[in-house]
Amino acid sequence: MSFKLLILGSNSSLPAYGRHHTSQWLTIGRSHFMIDCGEGTQYQLLKYKTPVAKLNRVFISHLHGDHYLGLMGIIYSLHLSGRTSELTIYGPRGLDEIITTQLKYSGSTINYPLTFVEVSAESKTLIYENEELTVHAFPLLHRIPCTGFLFAEKPKPRRIKGALIPKDFPIENFEKLKKGEDITDADGKVIFANKHLTLPPKHARSYAFCSDTGWFPTISEYFHSIDLIYHETTFLEEKEKWARQTFHSTTKDAGLIAKQVKAKQLLIGHFSARYKSIEPFVEETKQYFKNSMAAEEGKIFTIKD
Amino acid sequence: MSFKLLILGSNSSLPAYGRHHTSQWLTIGRSHFMIDCGEGTQYQLLKYKTPVAKLNRVFISHLHGDHYLGLMGIIYSLHLSGRTSELTIYGPRGLDEIITTQLKYSGSTINYPLTFVEVSAESKTLIYENEELTVHAFPLLHRIPCTGFLFAEKPKPRRIKGALIPKDFPIENFEKLKKGEDITDADGKVIFANKHLTLPPKHARSYAFCSDTGWFPTISEYFHSIDLIYHETTFLEEKEKWARQTFHSTTKDAGLIAKQVKAKQLLIGHFSARYKSIEPFVEETKQYFKNSMAAEEGKIFTIKD
Repeated sequence: MSFKLLILGSNSSLPAYGRHHTSQWLTIGRSHFMIDCGEGTQYQLLKYKTPVAKLNRVFISHLHGDHYLGLMGIIYSLHLSGRTSELTIYGPRGLDEIITTQLKYSGSTINYPLTFVEVSAESKTLIYENEELTVHAFPLLHRIPCTGFLFAEKPKPRRIKGALIPKDFPIENFEKLKKGEDITDADGKVIFANKHLTLPPKHARSYAFCSDTGWFPTISEYFHSIDLIYHETTFLEEKEKWARQTFHSTTKDAGLIAKQVKAKQLLIGHFSARYKSIEPFVEETKQYFKNSMAAEEGKIFTIKD
Repeated sequence: MSFKLLILGSNSSLPAYGRHHTSQWLTIGRSHFMIDCGEGTQYQLLKYKTPVAKLNRVFISHLHGDHYLGLMGIIYSLHLSGRTSELTIYGPRGLDEIITTQLKYSGSTINYPLTFVEVSAESKTLIYENEELTVHAFPLLHRIPCTGFLFAEKPKPRRIKGALIPKDFPIENFEKLKKGEDITDADGKVIFANKHLTLPPKHARSYAFCSDTGWFPTISEYFHSIDLIYHETTFLEEKEKWARQTFHSTTKDAGLIAKQVKAKQLLIGHFSARYKSIEPFVEETKQYFKNSMAAEEGKIFTIKD
């Protein structure tokens, strides 16, 4: 099953140097999620040939323009493209009103069901799950209510060694083996030991998106041992004071958080328009967390199972 | 005095082939106007090095997303760039509510005064004037209230032949000459005949922006003998039926309107995403109005005086 993240934009509020506002496209198996949706995201989707018709759910972290202003355009474009399946939007209080006010004045009735799920920024909350994965929202520390999102595969079944299974093996036994149970007879005697017929489950992968936030070590209470964490780095260390005042983070902040949550990889973004090159961001962050990468537009980050 | 129009985008609602949504930047002397503001306009402004800080007034034709979704981002970016001077936005009922709802949830207080002027789509109305020019809104025929905008220089003074003016010429006489009056003595006897000391005024230039509209010959009641008219051509003639149903225009419609209003030049745009090339639009329109050009992004159209 695929688990990959496409970066559509990672600049902070003032666009600069051809960099676009925050948006990411996360594919986990059959699920296609959009995380944040800055202005121009629909153009980025076209540029990177994203299968936009497959979009299931949109997660908006907060209501600063650089994180949601592209959403209205995508809602219209999906409508014009003949979409009929439901689109669910998770976001803070107000997003529903912003969208419905605009729909009202546009005179448009959207062809497909549009569902809003209000996400509270008060505590870690399960906001969506299916057979394969869960999505939690968790609070961040910003000037207005802002949540991060944790996408995690559910624990996976043990893997059955097909070649060792007898031909007449009852189908219900497969489920037992996947769960790690032995196969017993009516008297409870083990006929097939699970450990002989199965391999350990594959790793359940996880990705945490930490949108705009000040220095906020509480994040480590929400998840740990994560495969990939995205954490904003609006500023280099030199601007730590300014980062504190504006509730944003520096390279050092992101690196320390990644270390604290025992992340395997750190992805940094939300770069301020004051910086032409983002190379210094990666260099600085690596001083605190070695496995750091920049969320550059068009790049795809894959988590292997 | 300059009178020039920069095209920032001219695609219809579904973006395609790298073409952006409608927006134009009109410079008349010291006035810098934006006409419509589709999503991504602020990126286009950067791309074409437009002096965005000088923006005085924004004119929004109607509340379909491809004509205004970029406005919120520009309002934020001007704020972040330290703007302090007033910005006036002219647009239909609802635009004010859309903007203020978003500002409310963003937690932002914009640094500069933001003024909304509600424009009615019921009749031709003067919505702005200064010493040099007037701006009128006029109704178009669309699915929701939609106005066009007419930008016209005021009649200009006669031009004084400086070399012929005596050294001790009283300053008040200059004003008389500019108005076309002769200079007389106390008895009313002509001392200086205006026709000898002046040249005819320079031509007062005009530009009409006809945003989304179906076939609407009433346009010719709003202006005539225009220097440049922009008229939408969402479809080629082959789609006339569909154009009528969706309240859009064809190449033929635009050509006939341009002829009817005695335009010198016709600019066409709002091209449907179904067409990869816009060359056929120009070719077709020229069959009805020879001096036709496509509103291609990045192109500048200058009206000489």
